[in-house]
Amino acid sequence: MANKTITAPKGFVAAGLHCGVKKSGKPDLALLYCPTGAKAAAVFTTNAIEAAPVTVCRKHVLNNPIYAAVVNSGNANACTGKKGLATAKVMCGKVAKELQISAEKVLVASTGIIGHQLPITKITAGIGKSVQILSDSQAMGLNFAKAIMTTDTRAKQATKVFDIQGHAITIAATSKGAGMIGPNMATTICVVTTDGAISRPLLGKAFKNAIGVSLNRLTVDGHQSTNDTAMILSSGLAGNKTIKKQDSGYRQFCQALSTVCGDLAKQMALDAEGATRMFKVVIKGAAKKEEALKAARAIADYDLVKCAVHGADPNWGRIVCAIGSSGVKLDPAKLSCKIGDIFVFRNSKPTNFNANEVSRIISKKEHTITVDLNAGKFQDFCYGCDLSREYVHINADYHT
Amino acid sequence: MANKTITAPKGFVAAGLHCGVKKSGKPDLALLYCPTGAKAAAVFTTNAIEAAPVTVCRKHVLNNPIYAAVVNSGNANACTGKKGLATAKVMCGKVAKELQISAEKVLVASTGIIGHQLPITKITAGIGKSVQILSDSQAMGLNFAKAIMTTDTRAKQATKVFDIQGHAITIAATSKGAGMIGPNMATTICVVTTDGAISRPLLGKAFKNAIGVSLNRLTVDGHQSTNDTAMILSSGLAGNKTIKKQDSGYRQFCQALSTVCGDLAKQMALDAEGATRMFKVVIKGAAKKEEALKAARAIADYDLVKCAVHGADPNWGRIVCAIGSSGVKLDPAKLSCKIGDIFVFRNSKPTNFNANEVSRIISKKEHTITVDLNAGKFQDFCYGCDLSREYVHINADYHT
Repeated sequence: MANKTITAPKGFVAAGLHCGVKKSGKPDLALLYCPTGAKAAAVFTTNAIEAAPVTVCRKHVLNNPIYAAVVNSGNANACTGKKGLATAKVMCGKVAKELQISAEKVLVASTGIIGHQLPITKITAGIGKSVQILSDSQAMGLNFAKAIMTTDTRAKQATKVFDIQGHAITIAATSKGAGMIGPNMATTICVVTTDGAISRPLLGKAFKNAIGVSLNRLTVDGHQSTNDTAMILSSGLAGNKTIKKQDSGYRQFCQALSTVCGDLAKQMALDAEGATRMFKVVIKGAAKKEEALKAARAIADYDLVKCAVHGADPNWGRIVCAIGSSGVKLDPAKLSCKIGDIFVFRNSKPTNFNANEVSRIISKKEHTITVDLNAGKFQDFCYGCDLSREYVHINADYHT
Repeated sequence: MANKTITAPKGFVAAGLHCGVKKSGKPDLALLYCPTGAKAAAVFTTNAIEAAPVTVCRKHVLNNPIYAAVVNSGNANACTGKKGLATAKVMCGKVAKELQISAEKVLVASTGIIGHQLPITKITAGIGKSVQILSDSQAMGLNFAKAIMTTDTRAKQATKVFDIQGHAITIAATSKGAGMIGPNMATTICVVTTDGAISRPLLGKAFKNAIGVSLNRLTVDGHQSTNDTAMILSSGLAGNKTIKKQDSGYRQFCQALSTVCGDLAKQMALDAEGATRMFKVVIKGAAKKEEALKAARAIADYDLVKCAVHGADPNWGRIVCAIGSSGVKLDPAKLSCKIGDIFVFRNSKPTNFNANEVSRIISKKEHTITVDLNAGKFQDFCYGCDLSREYVHINADYHT
């Protein structure tokens, strides 16, 4: 079986283990190493309150090359003041010391509970052990993916191999994210590796675009966390000539990267806290591009729509209500809405749809809600998931 | 026992009965009549998709005097096209015919499911019966309150009597509202009566202000419905000299009206779908007045905060996350948060609070979350409620 983990691209080794942050004994420390050095880029939360590792990582990612990335789960190192900032740097420092590289060339991320200091001695000990087991095996790639999980029920991974001028380029990615997922940064942690050789500014541009149409289009509860971090590292070892903007290979790279990130976004929607199914909202006929996205999110974030999806209920009234309440321009006499391919509301009038048939469409793992605002020519989309009793259970009982 | 219903102010009779819209057999038709004619004002949903009765009522409320108001529950008469508009007018017409008044002087509202035509023959028959039982009794006032309910578990009523120059002025109100309650119109239906004599423009101004600091400060799921309507009718029979803007009585009237509407808002929060407790969010130190309200709503609307309140969990990290994600200006080094009177986060650092003690505060029927943004001098507030499994149950299983 081909390696489907972040160690699939040439030039990367990884490790994942339990170092003691999580009481459950599950993996909580992940390490990625690129011995030849990687070009890197990252996208971060826009939450005004950002965690210590975000502050450190923002600075480190400006360096070139980047050699490693370290991530812990179980503790977000957020709202932890100067001490938290120091421990985030200690994480990088320990990795650097073990791998004999510079601490400024290590990326760092944390995810988990807010407001508690990291158990840094456990983490530094874990980093020491991680270095010993670094491997390009699929098993270690999977361990990395598991070690960044919090309330996720399964590891999320996606890979794509494509060809540029006879060279096989691999892109691989893993992410974690369950609750607290919303625009503008629909993940807590996402790590992408590739062996495609590409210039650093182009890598950053392609990554920002890919996250924009994938993770940033996913909304679970409409909020972004203090820790959201997505990073990409390129070893450039695939053998291709460095991709430049005018190359046809650049479009291929962008498409492949968007596909991989889009795949992760769907996995995250389906594994959102308590989620049993997901849906895509497509808005057509918006007066402005940004209004199309705003309207899509208004539907995907609306608890009453999310509950209706959970109940497989073709309650288009709630969709219309969400749209009307979103503040976007629309033609109140010509609004239309489809669930799957079936019009449930057309030119602002209910249709005589078969409720059982539409309910069956909603019952699937994934369906599409399409709304035509009839106010212009712009369109956009986003992904959402249902709201279940389980979401409440998880989030009412996850005590601080 | 004093009459605590909307028939308490002088000059009003009411009725409430089951006419056949609701399958449950519960009351679904409410009629209010002011034989001497009333000054009236109303506030409506700002949802771009408005129900037929909203369109009709917006027009009728411009007339003076207003003699009656008719409300049905069980069917919203929303997204029902021209036919829906016609039936809303038929409702007014039937009331007018029975009471020998003009149809344009009747206010109308509907609440319930969206997208189904009203069973208008049942409603007109019900109006005929309602007229026969109109009474100023407390029992009929209560029946009116019950007849506007949908998923509410109890009738919501509030009254206040105060004195202006030796004349007892009474304000009484009832409202319904469970899910689909959000800014800018935190109710589906609210009917207020008073016998205080006040000029019509002042009545409108006082009402808009009162709704602004009460129902519009309540958020259950952040959305406003297609039908939200709040109306006030003044018979002017209390005997006071007509209140004018410069009178001290105007401030008294405004305060009493705000108190009554605020009382309703709290009742609505506590009876929100699945809610077990409510909370008030107070934002201090905002750079702008509107940012204070925006931040307050960001917290009250955030599902993770609502779940934490449900679990009586002092999870201040989620509060901080909601604030940081809201886009308002704040000092990231000087953010503070109190639950009740206890600081859980001060100058952007967690405090050593007693978790059990704070959990006990959250467990109460009502508590206050106070956040100081340290970015300016403005403050504002809103009300929210917890998010329970029961909310999901109600809204996943309430089939169209």
